[in-house]
Amino acid sequence: MNILVINSGSSSLKYQMFDMQRERLIAKGRVERIGSETALISQQDGAGHEVTLVQEIMTHSEAISLMLRLLTNPDTGVLRSVTDIHGVGHRVVHGGEVFTGEVLINAGVKREIKRLYDVAPLHNPAHMVGITAVEEHLPDVPQVAVFDTAFHQTLPAKAYLYPIPRVLHRKYGIRRYGFHGTSHEYVSRRAALLLGKPVTQLNMVTCHIGNGVSCTAIEAGRSVDTSMGMTPLEGLMMGTRSGDLDPAILPYLMMKEELTLHEISSMLNKHSGLLGVSGISSDVREIQEAARQGQASAILALEMYEYRIRKYIGAYAAAMNGVDAIVFTGGVGENSSYLRQQITQRLTYLGVAVDERLNEAADSGERLISAEQSRVSVLVIPTNEELMIAQKTYALLEKKEAAAPSCDTDRVHHAALGSV
Amino acid sequence: MNILVINSGSSSLKYQMFDMQRERLIAKGRVERIGSETALISQQDGAGHEVTLVQEIMTHSEAISLMLRLLTNPDTGVLRSVTDIHGVGHRVVHGGEVFTGEVLINAGVKREIKRLYDVAPLHNPAHMVGITAVEEHLPDVPQVAVFDTAFHQTLPAKAYLYPIPRVLHRKYGIRRYGFHGTSHEYVSRRAALLLGKPVTQLNMVTCHIGNGVSCTAIEAGRSVDTSMGMTPLEGLMMGTRSGDLDPAILPYLMMKEELTLHEISSMLNKHSGLLGVSGISSDVREIQEAARQGQASAILALEMYEYRIRKYIGAYAAAMNGVDAIVFTGGVGENSSYLRQQITQRLTYLGVAVDERLNEAADSGERLISAEQSRVSVLVIPTNEELMIAQKTYALLEKKEAAAPSCDTDRVHHAALGSV
Repeated sequence: MNILVINSGSSSLKYQMFDMQRERLIAKGRVERIGSETALISQQDGAGHEVTLVQEIMTHSEAISLMLRLLTNPDTGVLRSVTDIHGVGHRVVHGGEVFTGEVLINAGVKREIKRLYDVAPLHNPAHMVGITAVEEHLPDVPQVAVFDTAFHQTLPAKAYLYPIPRVLHRKYGIRRYGFHGTSHEYVSRRAALLLGKPVTQLNMVTCHIGNGVSCTAIEAGRSVDTSMGMTPLEGLMMGTRSGDLDPAILPYLMMKEELTLHEISSMLNKHSGLLGVSGISSDVREIQEAARQGQASAILALEMYEYRIRKYIGAYAAAMNGVDAIVFTGGVGENSSYLRQQITQRLTYLGVAVDERLNEAADSGERLISAEQSRVSVLVIPTNEELMIAQKTYALLEKKEAAAPSCDTDRVHHAALGSV
Repeated sequence: MNILVINSGSSSLKYQMFDMQRERLIAKGRVERIGSETALISQQDGAGHEVTLVQEIMTHSEAISLMLRLLTNPDTGVLRSVTDIHGVGHRVVHGGEVFTGEVLINAGVKREIKRLYDVAPLHNPAHMVGITAVEEHLPDVPQVAVFDTAFHQTLPAKAYLYPIPRVLHRKYGIRRYGFHGTSHEYVSRRAALLLGKPVTQLNMVTCHIGNGVSCTAIEAGRSVDTSMGMTPLEGLMMGTRSGDLDPAILPYLMMKEELTLHEISSMLNKHSGLLGVSGISSDVREIQEAARQGQASAILALEMYEYRIRKYIGAYAAAMNGVDAIVFTGGVGENSSYLRQQITQRLTYLGVAVDERLNEAADSGERLISAEQSRVSVLVIPTNEELMIAQKTYALLEKKEAAAPSCDTDRVHHAALGSV
């Protein structure tokens, strides 16, 4: 069974094609600058052969059409025909309180995704455009939505509610949803495998440190707290996002600088974080380089970034009354041995002992970096949200086939809607 | 030497008179509803004899005048004459980045306190009214300002800066100041004494849990992080304040409910916290009672309240790479054995073991409540900000007398201003 994974953004589209019998990536690609005359589509097959085209791509529908053509091209393609695509898994950022897991997409699911535009205005509309475009070109292929928020739906009320009037939760859905769920779930499962223990016997803090940053407390395999909140702005300091702030700063600044709601949001989402403090870049690599050259603002930005992650690890250790494993993932988490060292060297009170040699080894795979005597396992697990989406899509479609041997897709859709 | 301690609010005034040779409270009182025809002044002497008057008190100046009359009244008073007041210590909430300790009040100091009206609009103007009224009635008595923020001026930049554009710190002083500093300092010093160790050899988390709530990480006697921020809104869930929130909730709610800056601030400061979640009260005692009767919203409010304190303790353990002592203070921290038990029972990963019997003992004094085998000492220390203000005022005036034997107050004032 071949599963196509789609991550549709407002002017971009990323995709990966997996052969799920062998759990093998057979192609991946991306389309950029959709809506322009100089859009780009680029695709790599499993052997690494790449094809890139620059041309006019005005809509997501055109992008999907071009993607299908590249995937089935006799020379550069990996499929004989589009009928070799057996299912499509979509990354959907916001599943609200309705979606606690992946779900077959039907009219009801689409209605719910649309209802959430309000809390995920940057993401859900873009995902819906991708879903509609795929439906248009592959009307007979089942599509599955895999939500970034779903893994965090196990949070207890004390962790997901905010200390504001209760009515605001009922009225507007204001609560902690958390994001990066697919990544946190994936790396926690891989970490348990690597440790040779059932995930149900482990308390973990998983740190997804990329352009967005979030930490999750995972108790016996279930997310019990996570640093991102109603939106991805809360929690840790990120590339351009502030993370946690005194809430009173917002009205204060709006008054002082006469900012609109849009302007204050934009400041905190796009001009804060590493970029705002360093004044140099939102990219940890560039800031590390500037810090090595002695630039004070870069050193400070890294200190704040590290310090805030360390405090969240400490807070989540308290949330779970102890931690067995700390997992680093995401572009920065996987690659910055410096940051991992900075964070873990001041966690010796938990019994954390990182092996310097293992931490600095030029290894890009899944690995344990704690020393043998460490009371807490420390791991680096490259995340693979696309594979996890493919696995979830595959599992759901397998189950569907087992449950509904006929091809009555309407019946299947209704069943899925019922389970929403 | 007799020191009068004044805490001047917008329509209230609390005072305590100490004999500092013997460190003994000789009288305390309060004036309420200043500005009304039915204001109240109430005073107790050291033996507990109380006098209460209800009458018109239109200004703070009138309140001070009445206070001085009660203090020196031949029947109910404790002083022969106002010349027996040798110094006045004022609680001042906000000292900004200028005041790192207590300071003799002069024209320059008053200018600085006024400059901070902007960041402490509810407090500093009220303190200034009190200072001016005392000057009017006791022109020859030196006055000292003791700031709630001063103890936290030792925070490192990584803890006091927010991850927003750096220019906002320079331009508007947007940073973490922290509050309750006098209380955190006081209880940390008392705790060290009780433990028989120099404060410089201890890492502590002090939890001031009253109507306002804040935790402070105190490393070797110095505040290195604290939960309140630019304003007292940040950090823990409080009686009516939200504490930490996804910052994106503010613009979202302002848009949805068409709230002004004033209205959103008011919601988060006055209608959130325990009151907002429970819908019952902002008072922990009433919520505990409702929880005992099984009210779900009260149980939830307490769970959130406890959980958030526990996470801060965990975060600060990580900030200091370990903790030797946890101190509870403030009305709730001192009196709710239930809350202390809830918080500490899930901190066994730190080696915390509270002795149930000690925790529940009907003792109102300074006490150790951890079990002998506990790796972390847990203490209850009743706070006494007024005594600490008196001590600081006394010490400063003693030093001043030693340094300047002449009565040239102008010279002294200038010297003090120089040290600001």
